[in-house]
Amino acid sequence: MGVMEGTRFFPSTLILFTISLVLVFTWVSLPHASPHPEELLDCTSDAFFNPRTDETATRSDHASDVPRHPLHPLTVQEINRIKDLILAHNLFTGSSTPYALHSVSLDEPDKLLVARWRKGYPLPPRRASVVARVGGRFRVLTVDIGSGAIDVLDDAVPASGYPLMTIEDTTSATQVPFSDAKFNSTVESRGVKPSDTICLPLSTGWYGAAEEGRRLINVQCFSSEGTPNFFMRPIEGLTVLVDLDTMRVVRIVDKGSTIPIPKADNTDYRFSQVNVNQRMNLINPISIEQPKGPSFVVEDGHTVKWANWEFHLKADPRAGVVISQARVRDSETGEMRLVMYKGFPSELFVPYMDPTDGWYFKTYMDAGEYGFGLQAMPLDPLNDCPRNAYFMDGVFTAADGTPYVRSNMICIYESYAGDIGWRHTESPITGMGIKEVRPKVTLVVRMASSVGNYDYIVDWEFQTDGLIRLKVGLSGILMVKGTHYSNLDDVPLQEDLYGTLISENLIGVIHDHHIAFYLDMDIDGADNSFVQVGIKKEQTSPGESPRRSYLKAVRNVARTEKEAQVKLKLYDPSEYHIINPNKKTRVGNPVGYKIVPAGNAASLLDLDDPPQKRAAFTNNQIWVTPYNRSEQWAGGLFVCQSQGKDTIAVWSERDRPIENKDIVVWYTMGFHHIPCQEDFPIMPTVSASFDLKPVNFFESNPILRIPPNLEKDLPVCRPAA
Amino acid sequence: MGVMEGTRFFPSTLILFTISLVLVFTWVSLPHASPHPEELLDCTSDAFFNPRTDETATRSDHASDVPRHPLHPLTVQEINRIKDLILAHNLFTGSSTPYALHSVSLDEPDKLLVARWRKGYPLPPRRASVVARVGGRFRVLTVDIGSGAIDVLDDAVPASGYPLMTIEDTTSATQVPFSDAKFNSTVESRGVKPSDTICLPLSTGWYGAAEEGRRLINVQCFSSEGTPNFFMRPIEGLTVLVDLDTMRVVRIVDKGSTIPIPKADNTDYRFSQVNVNQRMNLINPISIEQPKGPSFVVEDGHTVKWANWEFHLKADPRAGVVISQARVRDSETGEMRLVMYKGFPSELFVPYMDPTDGWYFKTYMDAGEYGFGLQAMPLDPLNDCPRNAYFMDGVFTAADGTPYVRSNMICIYESYAGDIGWRHTESPITGMGIKEVRPKVTLVVRMASSVGNYDYIVDWEFQTDGLIRLKVGLSGILMVKGTHYSNLDDVPLQEDLYGTLISENLIGVIHDHHIAFYLDMDIDGADNSFVQVGIKKEQTSPGESPRRSYLKAVRNVARTEKEAQVKLKLYDPSEYHIINPNKKTRVGNPVGYKIVPAGNAASLLDLDDPPQKRAAFTNNQIWVTPYNRSEQWAGGLFVCQSQGKDTIAVWSERDRPIENKDIVVWYTMGFHHIPCQEDFPIMPTVSASFDLKPVNFFESNPILRIPPNLEKDLPVCRPAA
Repeated sequence: MGVMEGTRFFPSTLILFTISLVLVFTWVSLPHASPHPEELLDCTSDAFFNPRTDETATRSDHASDVPRHPLHPLTVQEINRIKDLILAHNLFTGSSTPYALHSVSLDEPDKLLVARWRKGYPLPPRRASVVARVGGRFRVLTVDIGSGAIDVLDDAVPASGYPLMTIEDTTSATQVPFSDAKFNSTVESRGVKPSDTICLPLSTGWYGAAEEGRRLINVQCFSSEGTPNFFMRPIEGLTVLVDLDTMRVVRIVDKGSTIPIPKADNTDYRFSQVNVNQRMNLINPISIEQPKGPSFVVEDGHTVKWANWEFHLKADPRAGVVISQARVRDSETGEMRLVMYKGFPSELFVPYMDPTDGWYFKTYMDAGEYGFGLQAMPLDPLNDCPRNAYFMDGVFTAADGTPYVRSNMICIYESYAGDIGWRHTESPITGMGIKEVRPKVTLVVRMASSVGNYDYIVDWEFQTDGLIRLKVGLSGILMVKGTHYSNLDDVPLQEDLYGTLISENLIGVIHDHHIAFYLDMDIDGADNSFVQVGIKKEQTSPGESPRRSYLKAVRNVARTEKEAQVKLKLYDPSEYHIINPNKKTRVGNPVGYKIVPAGNAASLLDLDDPPQKRAAFTNNQIWVTPYNRSEQWAGGLFVCQSQGKDTIAVWSERDRPIENKDIVVWYTMGFHHIPCQEDFPIMPTVSASFDLKPVNFFESNPILRIPPNLEKDLPVCRPAA
Repeated sequence: MGVMEGTRFFPSTLILFTISLVLVFTWVSLPHASPHPEELLDCTSDAFFNPRTDETATRSDHASDVPRHPLHPLTVQEINRIKDLILAHNLFTGSSTPYALHSVSLDEPDKLLVARWRKGYPLPPRRASVVARVGGRFRVLTVDIGSGAIDVLDDAVPASGYPLMTIEDTTSATQVPFSDAKFNSTVESRGVKPSDTICLPLSTGWYGAAEEGRRLINVQCFSSEGTPNFFMRPIEGLTVLVDLDTMRVVRIVDKGSTIPIPKADNTDYRFSQVNVNQRMNLINPISIEQPKGPSFVVEDGHTVKWANWEFHLKADPRAGVVISQARVRDSETGEMRLVMYKGFPSELFVPYMDPTDGWYFKTYMDAGEYGFGLQAMPLDPLNDCPRNAYFMDGVFTAADGTPYVRSNMICIYESYAGDIGWRHTESPITGMGIKEVRPKVTLVVRMASSVGNYDYIVDWEFQTDGLIRLKVGLSGILMVKGTHYSNLDDVPLQEDLYGTLISENLIGVIHDHHIAFYLDMDIDGADNSFVQVGIKKEQTSPGESPRRSYLKAVRNVARTEKEAQVKLKLYDPSEYHIINPNKKTRVGNPVGYKIVPAGNAASLLDLDDPPQKRAAFTNNQIWVTPYNRSEQWAGGLFVCQSQGKDTIAVWSERDRPIENKDIVVWYTMGFHHIPCQEDFPIMPTVSASFDLKPVNFFESNPILRIPPNLEKDLPVCRPAA
């Protein structure tokens, strides 16, 4: 679900916004964990253990940040300079209409330059990629921050669609209906006071020529009377189409005049509002404790070093979290070996399954429309992330070019859930007395993006055995539909509710979530191949064996893109390996990683349905493309009102060679969500994941020699005073 | 993999076994956690926090155990009485051949009696179900422990197959080859000293009439020279067929005389043997800490109460862990509501994918052949389960009828991994300032069964939101095959290795694991229905909508068994609900739970292949049957050398009515395992899971009113001295 909240309480939202930027400018230095266990101080003060639990104590203005790595995101100083450079450019000085910057991000140096760079070397030239609206047109610019040179890349502007909406676009749009008398009277006729009305900007999708030529948004509204959970009180059937450039009402449709506004009862989810007698204290306090502090460090603000892993981590306004240059230490040689050059959530697709008037267009692409990173709010210490978590901020750019800080947007922590890394017990009758068990501890990098009502929790989880798990959790609030019905018994048998009656007058509409990950795997170097290891039934010949059948692994190296488009099948399974065909283990296996799907859901919409064409990355679960700087966003660079001409499905039509090339693997995970009453008024988290797992990458189990837990190493704890 | 170790070092294994039983008879009382948080003592002593970290301090002889619940497993006293009663029965007094008890377990009272029972009531009559070999025949007996009456149930003896092997069967069988001169000379000719030779009892499967009429086992052997990890040093191609009743060699096949024994190098996995300089101290100490102790209690030895859950838990020799009468508290009414009457791992199927002579028969059914519980060894405190874990013992019966204790076989602990129960953040521009996040804490019940080389970690994980996750982790040691090859480059292109070269002269053979769970779901009572909620693409009519398609939920109530046989399909998905059709929520939805599959693998063998017929429960992922006392074991009651005449596939052929009946749901999860070098010499854990999730069971989110974490509640910890 992709929506941005706006209210009519703050007609000058931009002013408020600017104030909030100022508020977060307080610098506090952060204690870092020590890089190597043997160097650890025996610090026992609470301050050391709990460095960032007080949110106000964790903010930094980042004003003095200096890039120290080629992939360091744009700094506050750099963004300010970019703004100055752009505003001085003749495109901008020559325009009389307002400008807006829809995207400002680091234009990463060539992979080769980054690969060659070492700490202490000068950085490659710092450049920014900017998408701007200026003179009524969209422009893609490259800004050389050092030299001040600006390139206008007209070829880079997609043939259809519009870029990421700015925060200012969406907040302003939600005010527009209130300027319309018909809207105000309609709302009042539904029994909602204007002061209780909260409106949301809902992207329109694209459904044909009538919607082209101007930027549009659908605004729908809710009553916040008696609840902060206004999502549960839709003014059903009222849709206001707004022109985002002129900020005028294009059309008002009201098809729900007789549908009641669902009641506010039981919708508030704030703990502060729970009657003391109704609070559920189900469990005693529980905590992950690390008496010597965490085992990771964050160097130069972005390089995370933990156990046998090292990677670069940054916030991104569109992708949310970007992991780069993930390397793992070889357990035999001690060498740091490259696994993944870059990985991030590339796009989301969230189609609702209701074809009627106020609902058909709800087919969100959250990263490209709203910004998965822009919607990631500060994490809550002790609840979003446990004690000892390290918090990282994002530095983003407002529409006018001003930098701002999203504090505590990412957290990093070590997790121990009581799980087992490996084990074996010998039966006592062998007399060997063997019981060897190793606990499993992981490092989690987390972001939670609240794209309007929905909350997406995105975890990258690193394991010492070389595995990387990508996990997406869904929580937050359902997008619901008002209805006359308050009991299923009243619904005629033939009537389709398009969802579940989850409370009186409230339908949780069926929808999907699909999330595509960009995974530029570089296993021991850039040139890799994609190998499907099919698991195929073989029949034995008569007389060959008492067995009639067995399973055989059949390797197929994909030569071109189309050979690597995969729809998962339980009854025609494969393993999906990314190997380096130029490097083999001691006994001759190519080194590699495999993608291990877990639970998944596929998009089942018509391939010709407009939303499916725009989100055609969901046509397969796996795609493999040759690395191409311009192909990062699975649904295209410009996604708002896009027509599907710039998706991975289009790029892949060229069927380019991918064998022994620098390749990018795209994996899409999905959820079908038929809501249920437990999702009301706020949803318990539902998660799914997939793994990147070493397969003949190491010569042997890389954590064979880790120690077990011993009582003497564990903390001594007491309840807080 | 289903194997039991035996060695030739202990020709009188039974004596040793008996000694070990005596050794564990030491009683120590256990501190229990307090049932309600408000009653918690503020105990800060280490002893309170870490009640059972010293294994020797945790053992109980259970000699004084008294059953306090109708489902309480047989006690030491009861087993002793059963032995006395049986040995006095004329079947036994009249037989001149040795007897053996293959299975002794509680014959649970009728469900209705159990449901009506309340604490303080007298127990229903205690009865045992016994499978005995006596007078050369297998008998199924029911023993009334109170009255002493014994019923001989000749109808209950399956038409084919033999029962669970006894520990004594398997340990004795591994000694038999050493009495054969040809075997000894063959082993010596392969360069293995008899004193280094360790043999394993490998069940034969069933491949036709030639193998009928006597109990058989294949014995294969390994060299333990230079390593405790003898599994990595197979004497390849040498198979000794042994008659389990006569304990004589039937046949010796040697097809590997030229295949070298793989080297011992790098195979030892014991931490004590790791050179100090090679130890990998990757992380600082980390622990789950509970300053006020855990939030669960175990009443009367078996009733677990935690948060909003309550269930009965016991060890079982065949199933491992049995959960009964799982109830969750209704968040609105406070009532304890029944979810599941009984759940346990019913059978495993582990076929190896090599049709050649020494391998084709390796198609294990671990629960029915070896006993999933019998092979579950004591858990390792701090490593198998974190601090604050509670350990539960199993009380089992040796072949002669003597009770023995498997200490620390099950653990129970609360887990917090840093995950999120639910969350929502409002964008700051709404001015609402909402950031509500609740941590996710779960209760884990764990067993680790070491069926020879493989270790299966079985977790039942209870969540406060009503979800139950069943997770199976695989670790331990691969079953490997010796080979001439030491590098893949030497293998002719056409040659099938049936696996991966994981080290010099060592092939990890491809195999599957399939685990069937018996789930007697009783959602608010016994009579339930199984509903497939199909997620179907609907086309819109021309002009109906700008959308061409959407997804619709189509409910189909299964009337008979065959309508509930499910093969999962990504492109034809469903939800799988178990509902109580006689109870609805406030707004009219039937209350229910759903089975949520995650990653899975299906058996792909020929339906007519003998192993597939025996393990026909893997023909579907889901089956639903009407409750029937005698149908508990998905692969049949007698599994050794079974012919597949007593599996769920056969029972279901009757296609009995299942709508609004007391039904049992069977879910099978699977793994395809193509080994890789990381699995050598011991495998990092691989896990898969599925969920039982409330769906309109509660009126709303049942954990809406739980509190967030607060700093003041969390412990103050310091490193141990």
